[in-house]
Amino acid sequence: MSELRIGVIGAAGRMGRMVSRVVIEHDACVLAAALEHTDSPHVGHDVGNLAGGNAAAVWVTDDPDAFYGACDAVVDFTRPASTVQHAAHAAAAGRIFVSGTTGLDAGQQDSLRQAAEKIPVVWAPNMSAGVNLLFAVTQRVAAALGEDYDIEIVEMHHRDKVDAPSGTALGLGRAAAAGRGVALEDAQILSREGHTGARERGRIGFAALRGGDVIGDHSVIFAGDGERVELTHRASRRDNYAQGAVRAALWAHGRDPGFYGMADVLGLTE
Amino acid sequence: MSELRIGVIGAAGRMGRMVSRVVIEHDACVLAAALEHTDSPHVGHDVGNLAGGNAAAVWVTDDPDAFYGACDAVVDFTRPASTVQHAAHAAAAGRIFVSGTTGLDAGQQDSLRQAAEKIPVVWAPNMSAGVNLLFAVTQRVAAALGEDYDIEIVEMHHRDKVDAPSGTALGLGRAAAAGRGVALEDAQILSREGHTGARERGRIGFAALRGGDVIGDHSVIFAGDGERVELTHRASRRDNYAQGAVRAALWAHGRDPGFYGMADVLGLTE
Amino acid sequence: MSELRIGVIGAAGRMGRMVSRVVIEHDACVLAAALEHTDSPHVGHDVGNLAGGNAAAVWVTDDPDAFYGACDAVVDFTRPASTVQHAAHAAAAGRIFVSGTTGLDAGQQDSLRQAAEKIPVVWAPNMSAGVNLLFAVTQRVAAALGEDYDIEIVEMHHRDKVDAPSGTALGLGRAAAAGRGVALEDAQILSREGHTGARERGRIGFAALRGGDVIGDHSVIFAGDGERVELTHRASRRDNYAQGAVRAALWAHGRDPGFYGMADVLGLTE
Amino acid sequence: MSELRIGVIGAAGRMGRMVSRVVIEHDACVLAAALEHTDSPHVGHDVGNLAGGNAAAVWVTDDPDAFYGACDAVVDFTRPASTVQHAAHAAAAGRIFVSGTTGLDAGQQDSLRQAAEKIPVVWAPNMSAGVNLLFAVTQRVAAALGEDYDIEIVEMHHRDKVDAPSGTALGLGRAAAAGRGVALEDAQILSREGHTGARERGRIGFAALRGGDVIGDHSVIFAGDGERVELTHRASRRDNYAQGAVRAALWAHGRDPGFYGMADVLGLTE
Repeated sequence: MSELRIGVIGAAGRMGRMVSRVVIEHDACVLAAALEHTDSPHVGHDVGNLAGGNAAAVWVTDDPDAFYGACDAVVDFTRPASTVQHAAHAAAAGRIFVSGTTGLDAGQQDSLRQAAEKIPVVWAPNMSAGVNLLFAVTQRVAAALGEDYDIEIVEMHHRDKVDAPSGTALGLGRAAAAGRGVALEDAQILSREGHTGARERGRIGFAALRGGDVIGDHSVIFAGDGERVELTHRASRRDNYAQGAVRAALWAHGRDPGFYGMADVLGLTE
Repeated sequence: MSELRIGVIGAAGRMGRMVSRVVIEHDACVLAAALEHTDSPHVGHDVGNLAGGNAAAVWVTDDPDAFYGACDAVVDFTRPASTVQHAAHAAAAGRIFVSGTTGLDAGQQDSLRQAAEKIPVVWAPNMSAGVNLLFAVTQRVAAALGEDYDIEIVEMHHRDKVDAPSGTALGLGRAAAAGRGVALEDAQILSREGHTGARERGRIGFAALRGGDVIGDHSVIFAGDGERVELTHRASRRDNYAQGAVRAALWAHGRDPGFYGMADVLGLTE
Repeated sequence: MSELRIGVIGAAGRMGRMVSRVVIEHDACVLAAALEHTDSPHVGHDVGNLAGGNAAAVWVTDDPDAFYGACDAVVDFTRPASTVQHAAHAAAAGRIFVSGTTGLDAGQQDSLRQAAEKIPVVWAPNMSAGVNLLFAVTQRVAAALGEDYDIEIVEMHHRDKVDAPSGTALGLGRAAAAGRGVALEDAQILSREGHTGARERGRIGFAALRGGDVIGDHSVIFAGDGERVELTHRASRRDNYAQGAVRAALWAHGRDPGFYGMADVLGLTE
Repeated sequence: MSELRIGVIGAAGRMGRMVSRVVIEHDACVLAAALEHTDSPHVGHDVGNLAGGNAAAVWVTDDPDAFYGACDAVVDFTRPASTVQHAAHAAAAGRIFVSGTTGLDAGQQDSLRQAAEKIPVVWAPNMSAGVNLLFAVTQRVAAALGEDYDIEIVEMHHRDKVDAPSGTALGLGRAAAAGRGVALEDAQILSREGHTGARERGRIGFAALRGGDVIGDHSVIFAGDGERVELTHRASRRDNYAQGAVRAALWAHGRDPGFYGMADVLGLTE
């Protein structure tokens, strides 16, 4: 199979630049095109420079037809309304569509499903391979070990994070709860302080650490009598979502039309 | 379902005493009988005392018929020849047979399979729930992440352990290799020292730490670009095998005859 | 130097039995005597059996004179009023006095200081070598790194612990605060949940995990820009206090009279 | 005290650019001057751009007099011969001299000591605050705990590292050995594989993990009976040496002339 030609939507945005850099450095694909809206001051700029590296001889365009004509797959980290339009455009052009846009409502997700009747669509609000894998493994381990093993989830993030626990920690909690067949809301203990009493069976506990410039560490601990199982993810770069999106595009190459998630890309659904 | 009546074979041995203690302390089963060979000085002794606790009003017998008559399931940690005989006896008596005996050859394993046509037989050379779970999860994660993620396995054991890496670490390595569809022997790097050169893609590395009275910690690390996934097991008591055996007996209660492993008990095979 | 003869006060209590076992198993000392109050049902019993092992040919006495006459050093884990009396008795008899009794008020501590004019007295409310070392190291690292490094303290204990954070975690927090020259009360964040806002400079954060039968793990994390330093203690047996007390007795052997703590025993005060 | 004016020697080199970036982003100092040799193509370029950011209105000069005239302290990561010359120049100009140059022989170190009679000189082959702290703490803990605690050192680095154990791991081993009053060469076990026999008392073991793009993690484990103490350093950015050098310059501001190391800067020598 020849190299996959990837186009980046929103190429001058923070995520778009990361995706461009990942594509440029990847052996199995090439950066073929870059799209911005007509008003962007970056139209005509070299994408390689925008991505913080050498010139790539690919220039940002505001012409969707030229953009879709130049590539096999497009990657989109934009906003829900924009994502819906681009999915339709990709379906009409017969291109693979990969999106990590967050916040899509049910109707917008349906629009992606319509596009997925004609092309492979991969959509995931969290594109990191490792985090998606941890979700799947957490559910499985929680189901296997049962309530004799107490579940605790601890995360650490940089000092500027303003809420606790992290969204990913709550996602891990939902995965654990699903493994046990309960709702997280009925099981969660979001923090502990003072006289807490003994731990109740079946609870899922959380703890949040903050400090330094830690990008994001998460651990799920299953503590039984005489043994512990711990599942840990450590992020050391902020471009994991971009990496995951490119992985998704490569995985979708040659697939039948369909609406896929990262669990499909990672082979966790069979 | 009423409490499962469990009998312990080799009740005066180190593992037999641990199994007895676990059964006595467990809510869902009762210690119903204890067997030793005729020459044992412990015949007639109270099993609770042998297990290091209060008298349990169950005395060690050397009469197999009385033993099998008193229980629903039997647990065996003995030696291959003895295990084969007991499996046949349990099959004739219609009792669940759980064995953690190691070193069975192919013919002896076939004998267990014969018994398993009449009764549920659970056999596993390592009965720990957590370790078996880690085997299964390691294989799955290795398959999902692929060779872009380097696999390293590190273990720590007490200062008296005389070989490295541990058998469990090698088992984790085999699980990782299976997930990638390769043979561990072709991928393993058992230690590193001096000028090693850069790491070759596809290798599975091992490292062994020794010290103190550490019972056994194992970690499998999947190191990619920008993220790590770590799967860890920490044993804090030596009775995990006994715990796993009792769990297996409870799981087998009411099952059809069949030859099962710990992956079945833990629900990892569906 | 010949083996140190150690006597155990409160020999039938939970801590007394642990101390006896540690002394019996230690190469550098012998269990020479065991004391209980006159009403104890254990007077006359063999201390080795009380400690859960073979008979030691040392029997519990209720005669203080016989007790003090038989040993070089005494170890006391009792109650404040009893500790004060025994310290005076040890001073009169010229014996080393080691006590891990908690809850002594200022006046009772003064009584120990009086005894310490004649004999070596080692008193510490937490006798674990590792934990005391972690206190000292935490203070030093906090002083060296300064407020550019955010301090977080995370602990895990078994499911039956009823309060959070643990007393040892708070002790680590006090050590960190002392290293920075502030009061813990002015710096502590005991838990985090919901919209916390960004982390304030100078804060010391805590997080508590509960589950399984974990005896006690503590970590102090110093998170700076681009690096983290972590100091961790993991307890795997409940007899660390007994171990520390015996270590203190051996250290005090041949010392001048004085009032010492575990930091002295560990050589952390020079 | 007003902001410290820092000059960067070798400003167009990899370390020079990192130092410039750290100085530019730091609140307590300003980037005042940048020096390169006369042949450098970067003479006249803006240092801020060289450091990968916005223009800083400071241009690279090849005139040492202008350079030394513009700053209070200079930072040097060059080569031994160059470092010796610059130390002499800084001494003549009365400027603080901070150097992280590696590989200085005894004579070259003496040259730095001569300069240090007139100015504060801070020289360290490893400028990371966290790593230097770990060296000091490891020595102290090894001395306090003694040979009852087995010492193991484990490190993880990226897949391109070609030797094992890392230089920092060996430095930690030397610190541990110094704490015990032995030579590392007499105690070290650099790797383990096969039938190793039981661990010998007093040994210091090493283990090396390789994978992904891990910048560098190091742990020193002290494993006793019933407890472990672990000291860990995790590097998440490659600019820790630059950070340490700037810290050293700020610390030296206002000090008496003298020859200092990072242990002085971190307050670990009192």
